[in-house]
Amino acid sequence: MERSDCMEKMVAAGIVAEYNPFHNGHAYQIETTRAAGATHIVAVLSGNFVQRGGPACAPKSVRANAAIACGADLVLELPLPYAMATAERFAAGAVGLLGALGCVDVISFGSECGDLALLAKAAEAICSPYCSDYTKNLLESGVTYARARQKAVEQLYGQQIAEVLSSPNNTLAVEYLRQIALQKLRIAPFTVTRGGARHDSGKADGKTASAALLRNLLDLEGIESIAPYVPAPALQIYRAAAAAGRMPFDSHSLNTAVLAHLRMMEKDAFSRLPDISSEGLDNRLHDAVRSSVSLDDLLARTKTKRYTLARIRRLVWHAFLGTDAALMRLPPPYIRVLAFNRRGMELLSAADQTASLPISHSLAKLEAHDDVCARFAQLEARAADLYALGLPGVLPCGSDYTQKISVHG
Amino acid sequence: MERSDCMEKMVAAGIVAEYNPFHNGHAYQIETTRAAGATHIVAVLSGNFVQRGGPACAPKSVRANAAIACGADLVLELPLPYAMATAERFAAGAVGLLGALGCVDVISFGSECGDLALLAKAAEAICSPYCSDYTKNLLESGVTYARARQKAVEQLYGQQIAEVLSSPNNTLAVEYLRQIALQKLRIAPFTVTRGGARHDSGKADGKTASAALLRNLLDLEGIESIAPYVPAPALQIYRAAAAAGRMPFDSHSLNTAVLAHLRMMEKDAFSRLPDISSEGLDNRLHDAVRSSVSLDDLLARTKTKRYTLARIRRLVWHAFLGTDAALMRLPPPYIRVLAFNRRGMELLSAADQTASLPISHSLAKLEAHDDVCARFAQLEARAADLYALGLPGVLPCGSDYTQKISVHG
Repeated sequence: MERSDCMEKMVAAGIVAEYNPFHNGHAYQIETTRAAGATHIVAVLSGNFVQRGGPACAPKSVRANAAIACGADLVLELPLPYAMATAERFAAGAVGLLGALGCVDVISFGSECGDLALLAKAAEAICSPYCSDYTKNLLESGVTYARARQKAVEQLYGQQIAEVLSSPNNTLAVEYLRQIALQKLRIAPFTVTRGGARHDSGKADGKTASAALLRNLLDLEGIESIAPYVPAPALQIYRAAAAAGRMPFDSHSLNTAVLAHLRMMEKDAFSRLPDISSEGLDNRLHDAVRSSVSLDDLLARTKTKRYTLARIRRLVWHAFLGTDAALMRLPPPYIRVLAFNRRGMELLSAADQTASLPISHSLAKLEAHDDVCARFAQLEARAADLYALGLPGVLPCGSDYTQKISVHG
Repeated sequence: MERSDCMEKMVAAGIVAEYNPFHNGHAYQIETTRAAGATHIVAVLSGNFVQRGGPACAPKSVRANAAIACGADLVLELPLPYAMATAERFAAGAVGLLGALGCVDVISFGSECGDLALLAKAAEAICSPYCSDYTKNLLESGVTYARARQKAVEQLYGQQIAEVLSSPNNTLAVEYLRQIALQKLRIAPFTVTRGGARHDSGKADGKTASAALLRNLLDLEGIESIAPYVPAPALQIYRAAAAAGRMPFDSHSLNTAVLAHLRMMEKDAFSRLPDISSEGLDNRLHDAVRSSVSLDDLLARTKTKRYTLARIRRLVWHAFLGTDAALMRLPPPYIRVLAFNRRGMELLSAADQTASLPISHSLAKLEAHDDVCARFAQLEARAADLYALGLPGVLPCGSDYTQKISVHG
């Protein structure tokens, strides 16, 4: 096939995901996106640490391979400073990466409402300066940022649009739309209505279950317990990973290490944490560390109506990983490839001409690019070294440099 | 009783110990010391971290109380920079504390040989400049420091004296004698021949077993398994401590935290570790950290004929605890009281007149004394905070400040 043919036929769709783990709902989104005309699918995947704050149930390489086995063509890594961040920054990083590829036509995302027009109105609402002023006022009454913003939108734009912001996938969808506008990207939105189990639902529904439920099953009963809810090719990859000691991540394994690290932190180190900005949260966290006897205890002591558990978890894990707060304010400096297949190779060939950032699967190569790349890469490598201590088969340091990329036929 | 009466009658004997845990052999040493004329017994006890490198099987407060219940009258804490150090520095700190009390007449120690004259000759031998020159030469052939010194003594002073240095208690005894001479103290030596199970022996012998064996039993089978080898009053204290979640320390609990900490250390931090002086050990340790998947793996990879396991363990735990290498070069800045009984109170009253260092049971008071005291106290408090994460009932931070002192009737 000539490149020109390939380029003419290519309709590349981007999906932002954690696949923690990959399940039937994720497969459905990829199928629907393909059925709507996407010829190539690129997924932007959180690495070893995810947005809810903490380690993923399987290493990024395993989750990337499962995605390729189940219909994605190219998997890119969302660097840690975006992956473990607020929805806004998470979306900024992920959309930024898709934009930087330069050959992505569509962004496909799940949403509870399935109504792009409504999502677009909500995105417009939260972009308005009235809304952010109003949100700031409401924040002072001690609610979470998300709740304050939803209330502001309700006051200013009515209940129907505010309602959109009450569901987690809608909220992320709105952030993608906003980032496309902010970053002035020519990427068309496409939304798949989420069916089956709701996000974070505790119950399975036929062949679908939330990722949260699947993680619980993995924790308590192991790989086979998630078989009904996961596509066969993903299950096969999970089985091989489990046999090799690569998953599931033991969710309690690093808790003592995290607590030990926080107990050793000087008081002023808490105020230098990323995203600590709110008045007093640094003191609150420091005091909670001093009086807590477990990680759950710490979270419970720090939690208020104003700060979500996810936010506190992210703070705690950033403290442990030593994330440089400055990295949270920079755009992604490189595009890291985690896995691809033949069509993914076509995407990469196209990106050769269009990408605005260095692309590689090799962390060492990306690290060598410039100083900012080096700081991102070193954080990623250190996070991988710490993550690797919680796998059934602990890996030596440097695994993020030596990890072979999986090229699928 | 008038103080003058009490002083006239007082023959105070010091014992340096770890009581990890206290057992029948320790009780025998106290009895023998008392039978030889000691009216008051002061024990200098390693805190939560001990000379073999790592956490003790029970918190210092529990071990101090067991010592009082079994015949000691006053228990002082050997600060961490001495407790987790070479035999030489361990002895320097412990003898220094006894000397600083100013009212200790005798130092009582176990020895395999039981022959003070021979021990004194060995102490003299190792003090000679010939011996240390010779030792340095032999070190270059790659043996441990202890082995090199023993060989040097054999060359220069013959086999009989060298033989003294082949047993661990003799070696410590020689260090005590040397420190008494170096520090010009008027403290008479008294030695109790070690009977029963040898140090580190894997077998119990009637009612005696090595502390190493008892720690293994505690690890594997819990408190009741050590009952035959421990005096009843100590056992009672251990039972109460176990019921309160204060012991036994889970020997694996902090391993991942230690590894995580070492994985996060920059390469040059290894060369700043206390007692790293030997050429290349910093690089060797750093490289081993990068390739190790467990703490045992790390120790095995770092170990050579030249470096003992205890030395490497101490390095690793000092790295974790963040021990300031500078503290390892200072003399003890204060005398901290862990527990006492009525006779211990008499010792403290006597020390009121004679002590050359501040004395208190309160870490906060000692910390406030001067800058050096503050650095020792803060290290001790942090070590306690980290130690407390490995107890069956994890304690919040600050336990070393809030710990009530036990005053026994």
